[in-house]
Amino acid sequence: MSSSNYSLSQLSAFTEAIFRKIGCSEQDATTATRVLLSADLRGIDSHGIARLSGYVRLWEATRVNATPEMKIIHETPSTAVLDGDAGLGLVVAPYAMQVAIDKAKNVGTGWVSVQNSNHYGIAASHAMMALQYDMIGISMTNASALVAPTFSVERLLGTNPICVAVPAGTEAPFVADMATTTAANGKLEILQRKKEAAPSGWIQDAQGNSTTDAHALKNGGALLPLGGDREHGSHKGYALGAIVDIFSAVLSGANYGPWVPPFPAYVPMPTGMPGKGIGHFFGAMRIDAFRPAADFKLHMDQWIRRFKSARTVEGVDRVIVPGEPEVELEQDRRLNGIPLLSAVVDDLKLLGDRFSIPFLKP
Amino acid sequence: MSSSNYSLSQLSAFTEAIFRKIGCSEQDATTATRVLLSADLRGIDSHGIARLSGYVRLWEATRVNATPEMKIIHETPSTAVLDGDAGLGLVVAPYAMQVAIDKAKNVGTGWVSVQNSNHYGIAASHAMMALQYDMIGISMTNASALVAPTFSVERLLGTNPICVAVPAGTEAPFVADMATTTAANGKLEILQRKKEAAPSGWIQDAQGNSTTDAHALKNGGALLPLGGDREHGSHKGYALGAIVDIFSAVLSGANYGPWVPPFPAYVPMPTGMPGKGIGHFFGAMRIDAFRPAADFKLHMDQWIRRFKSARTVEGVDRVIVPGEPEVELEQDRRLNGIPLLSAVVDDLKLLGDRFSIPFLKP
Repeated sequence: MSSSNYSLSQLSAFTEAIFRKIGCSEQDATTATRVLLSADLRGIDSHGIARLSGYVRLWEATRVNATPEMKIIHETPSTAVLDGDAGLGLVVAPYAMQVAIDKAKNVGTGWVSVQNSNHYGIAASHAMMALQYDMIGISMTNASALVAPTFSVERLLGTNPICVAVPAGTEAPFVADMATTTAANGKLEILQRKKEAAPSGWIQDAQGNSTTDAHALKNGGALLPLGGDREHGSHKGYALGAIVDIFSAVLSGANYGPWVPPFPAYVPMPTGMPGKGIGHFFGAMRIDAFRPAADFKLHMDQWIRRFKSARTVEGVDRVIVPGEPEVELEQDRRLNGIPLLSAVVDDLKLLGDRFSIPFLKP
Repeated sequence: MSSSNYSLSQLSAFTEAIFRKIGCSEQDATTATRVLLSADLRGIDSHGIARLSGYVRLWEATRVNATPEMKIIHETPSTAVLDGDAGLGLVVAPYAMQVAIDKAKNVGTGWVSVQNSNHYGIAASHAMMALQYDMIGISMTNASALVAPTFSVERLLGTNPICVAVPAGTEAPFVADMATTTAANGKLEILQRKKEAAPSGWIQDAQGNSTTDAHALKNGGALLPLGGDREHGSHKGYALGAIVDIFSAVLSGANYGPWVPPFPAYVPMPTGMPGKGIGHFFGAMRIDAFRPAADFKLHMDQWIRRFKSARTVEGVDRVIVPGEPEVELEQDRRLNGIPLLSAVVDDLKLLGDRFSIPFLKP
C-alpha cells in the first residue's frame, strides 16, 4: 500500500480542528492532538491519526463526552481516583498523570487510578510527562477483551499495555512501552493487509488451538498473552495483563475483564457492566525521593551504555535499549514528515469533508 | 529421585537453629526461617530449604553479615532507601517491606528501594505481607546475570522476579510471582537432573542460537527473557527484567546488570562493581487510599470468579487465577508435610553435622 509524508504541523492543525468541531475546548483539543500524534511520531502508527475517525465515531455514538468535568473523587497525599466523566482518554490521561506528578512533588510519589475514561492513545505519551521533572513515569490502561488467559477459549483481557519511562543523563531516556500480549493487535492488522500468516504463539482459534491464521480473531479466536503458551510462560503474560486490569479498573471503579467498553463504536456495549468506562493507572516517582538525581543519571547512563555495547548475536548491529528506536524515528519524522498509508489519507479526507476541514496534500 | 515428607515445624526448628549458629539474632533467625520455608510451602522448592546451605556458604565467604545494622539512608513521606548492611535478604527484605507498609499507612502508598542486600527468597513472601493490612503488595529483586537481553550473547540480567499480591474478599488473594524469563532456572535444573531436553525459547547457547540443550547455561549460554525470541516478544521480557534492575539497584545504589553478586559462594565477585550488594524494590498501596476496601473486595471477588469460570480449552479443568495453586499446595503441605528430595536431605544432614544439629528423620 502506497504512503505519502505529511508534516507534523499540518497533521496537528487538522487534528486539532476536528477535535474543536466535536466540541472540545481549545486546551483539550491541543492536548488530545499532542497525545494522538505522539504515536505517529514514535512509529506506533496504529494508535495515531489513523484512529482519529474512530474517536469521532465514539463521540457520535455519545460514548465520548467532549466537554468532561473531571473530578478527583477520593485521595490521600500520594494517591487519587479520578472520574474522567466519559471524556476522551487523550484528555483524561494527561490530566491524571499531572495529578500523579503533583503528588510526587509533595510526598515523593503519586499514584492515580482512573474510572470513566476512554482509549488514551499510547501509554508512553503519558508516562513520559514525568521525565521533565526528573521522575520515573508509569502508565497503564485496560482495554476491551481480545486476549484469552492461559487455558481459556474466552477473551477476558485487553492488550493492556504498560509503559515505564526512566530519565537518564546524556543518554536518551529508557522508555519501555508494551502490550502484555505476544504481539500487538496492530502487527496482526499488518499481516492481515498483506495476506500473510501470523507466527505461532500470537493467536488462537475459536477452540483455543494455536493458529497462524491472521484472521482468526474475527472468527472467534483470541490474541495470546506474552509467552504464547503455558510452556513458554503465557501464564506470566496473562498475570501482567491481569495486574493492569486490576490497577486500572478494580482500584478505580471502572469496568474490567470482559466488561470493558470496545473502541469501535459499532460494537455493542457489554451487558452487566460493573463499573464506569475504561480504566487507567498512572504513577510518578521523584528520583530524588530515593537518591540525588545527578547520581542516578550517572548510573542510568552507565546502565544504558553497558547494554548498548553488549556483544551481539551474528547479523545484528547492537542490543537495543527500550525507547531508543523511537527517539531516532521521532527525530526523522519531525524533520521529514509522517508517512500515512493511502487508506488512512482517504479516511481523513472523508472526515475532513464532513466537518468542512480540508485535508491538505502532503 | 526419591523424596520423603518432613513437617513444617521440624524443618522450621532445624533452619532456625542453623541461622542462630551463624550468629543471627533470635528474631532474625525466626524471620529468615519463615521467609525461606514459605517457598517450600508454596511449592517453589528451588528457593526454599534446598538453598539453606548456600546461604551458609555465603556467610562463610563473608559475603553475608549475620548481624546487620539496617539503616534508612534517604526518605520522603512515601519513599525510602534502605542500606541492608550486607544482611541476609531473608531478613532485609521483610524489614524493607514493613517500612513500605508503614509509609502506606501514613500517606496511602510506600515505596522502598534497597541496596547492600543478598538473595531474598521468593518475591511473594514479602509482597504478601501487605495483604493483612488490606494493601496491595509489590516485591521485586535483581539477581546475578544469567539472562541475555534480545540480540545479546552476553548475560546482563538476572531472572529478576516481580510479585504483585492483591487482597480479595472471600476468594483467595491474587498473587502473581514470576521470573521475567520464559522459564525459571529451577525448572531448567529439573530437566538437567532428568537428562531431558529443554523446550525451545528457554535458553540460547554461547553463540546466541536457540538451543534445547538443558546444560547450555553451564557452557556459556544464557536464559532467555519472557517471550523467548524477538518474534515472540522477548524484547518485552527483557524490558521487564530491566525495569526490575533499575528500580531495585539504580534507584537504591546497589549493583546492576552484569555486576550483581552471584548466589553461589564459589563464583568470584564481578570486577568494577558500581554499587553495594544486590538490590530489591518494594511497594505497598493501601486499598482505601483509592476506594473503600469492602467495595474493592467485592469487585475483586467478581473478577476472580469470572476468570475461574471461563470456558476452557479441551482437556483442561479450569482457568487458573495467579496464586490459586499455591494456596492449595500450602494447605496440603501444612497438613501432610513438605517433600524433600534425597539429595536435599543429604545436603541438610551434612550441614547439620557441621553445626552439631541433627537433621531428623521424616
